[in-house]
Amino acid sequence: MVDSDGQVIDRERRGTPGADAARTEAVIIEVISELRARHDVVAAGVGAAGWIANDNATVLFSPHLAWRNEPLRDALQSQLDLPLIVENDANAAAWAEYRFGAAGDEPVTVCVTLGTGIGGGLVIGGQVYRGAYGIACEYGHVTVVPEGRLCACGNHGCWEMYASGRALARDARELVAASPAAGRRLVELAATMDGLTGPVVAAAAAEGDPAAVSLCTTMGRWLGRGLANLAAILDPSMFVIGGGVSGAGELLLRPAREEFAHTLTGRGFRPVAQIVGASLGPDAGLVGAADLARRSVSA
Amino acid sequence: MVDSDGQVIDRERRGTPGADAARTEAVIIEVISELRARHDVVAAGVGAAGWIANDNATVLFSPHLAWRNEPLRDALQSQLDLPLIVENDANAAAWAEYRFGAAGDEPVTVCVTLGTGIGGGLVIGGQVYRGAYGIACEYGHVTVVPEGRLCACGNHGCWEMYASGRALARDARELVAASPAAGRRLVELAATMDGLTGPVVAAAAAEGDPAAVSLCTTMGRWLGRGLANLAAILDPSMFVIGGGVSGAGELLLRPAREEFAHTLTGRGFRPVAQIVGASLGPDAGLVGAADLARRSVSA
Repeated sequence: MVDSDGQVIDRERRGTPGADAARTEAVIIEVISELRARHDVVAAGVGAAGWIANDNATVLFSPHLAWRNEPLRDALQSQLDLPLIVENDANAAAWAEYRFGAAGDEPVTVCVTLGTGIGGGLVIGGQVYRGAYGIACEYGHVTVVPEGRLCACGNHGCWEMYASGRALARDARELVAASPAAGRRLVELAATMDGLTGPVVAAAAAEGDPAAVSLCTTMGRWLGRGLANLAAILDPSMFVIGGGVSGAGELLLRPAREEFAHTLTGRGFRPVAQIVGASLGPDAGLVGAADLARRSVSA
Repeated sequence: MVDSDGQVIDRERRGTPGADAARTEAVIIEVISELRARHDVVAAGVGAAGWIANDNATVLFSPHLAWRNEPLRDALQSQLDLPLIVENDANAAAWAEYRFGAAGDEPVTVCVTLGTGIGGGLVIGGQVYRGAYGIACEYGHVTVVPEGRLCACGNHGCWEMYASGRALARDARELVAASPAAGRRLVELAATMDGLTGPVVAAAAAEGDPAAVSLCTTMGRWLGRGLANLAAILDPSMFVIGGGVSGAGELLLRPAREEFAHTLTGRGFRPVAQIVGASLGPDAGLVGAADLARRSVSA
């Protein structure tokens, strides 16, 4: 439950039964209904991990859920009698950072959310950019290394295979295997190899572990290279970097800014976009989805 | 001189004295004045190879001319007493293809002009996209091969080092050096090694020379890979491919479409953008600059 200033004033949380579209919908309806019983709700926004058609109604495809060409908005609306929009979760997070967070009133804002993979969003002149079919901003799947690491999308060398929580974890596991001594603190914090995630590496780096700092530097440089690619195409005034591993803060952002400055095409002859950390944390997606829903009603 | 239907009804052509900003301006004024003496001119558009600030008035930087933070619009306007805009030449070409050419009324059109390098343009919802600072759509400088071929921009592995007239010429010269027999027809057509340009390779391919066809296939695949990167970010409905080496037509576009389909992230779960040849040829830039100038007056 989000107010008009972007503050989260109440929340319900459920696990997602992802294998069955009807059960996923039932849980969404349950959450909305419980919040609605306690508050005056004007509209609901669903921030979904998937490709949402430009109608903000249909989920074309969701990698982790059963939605395939799912008319989600109509299915929910018929049971709720409430205005409702469906938005890609990374688009929603970008919108929240633009409206209430780090991006202020920038003319062109690129948001990069470093989770398991990379979530991408773009706000141009106060509008979420969705592309011709609603599938834009899949920044994580720009190829940065031809014949590089195999990605779940089927391509090799996608950016998110080098700059994401999963990439950081993968690099950490390789390091631990190659040098148990250097990786000692990482193993202590992770308890198990499965527990050696991106956020654990970020936490180890934050407390000064040299191996973790080095892993963050490597990933930060890949981050900066990818941002330079985006700048060549989109020429934004600001990049906002969020997500689980952005907890490493300047340990990621400083090498990212350095590599960005080092690889930005036309460097020296152009204004340089800012690269800042996100300010809304993991709530960005829900805040953005709620605000977009509110605006769809007042528009 | 371009009418409101995008038809070129008269023209003057001059060489560009590029080393001196004042002399460049004098030639532009001469051309406009001569056309104006013969026609009723409502506005003038300058399509310039360089970075134009978002005010459509200032040239930030031009790689081949003396313009550095040059207030070109005001300088010309003060001598002409005529409404005038300055636009990047690739943006102008993209606008012309959108308004009068191959791109019809597509919601998101990406134009790629294969000249010496790559000129890029983007039309979103009937508006030329310029980025926050006017420097967007430098598609040719997306890195496609880390540590790859050195580009004039200072980076390694820029897309235009693999997919452009210069790239095609470079590959052709390497082939001729490695296998004079295979390159025999290319050498015949070029007369000299300096004459072995991208359009010459395209012409050899068009008449069926196997070596030239193979060079076009290699470049077409790089073209398709880069378009797949752009689709991941921009999700356009149409790509329009123009420029000097696009004369190879389907010999470039077929392998480009194949590689695009082969490397598009999310392939199988999304609509696939069309990839078509440009329809306005080398006049696209001047037609687009003129039409944008006309619209700036009527707006």
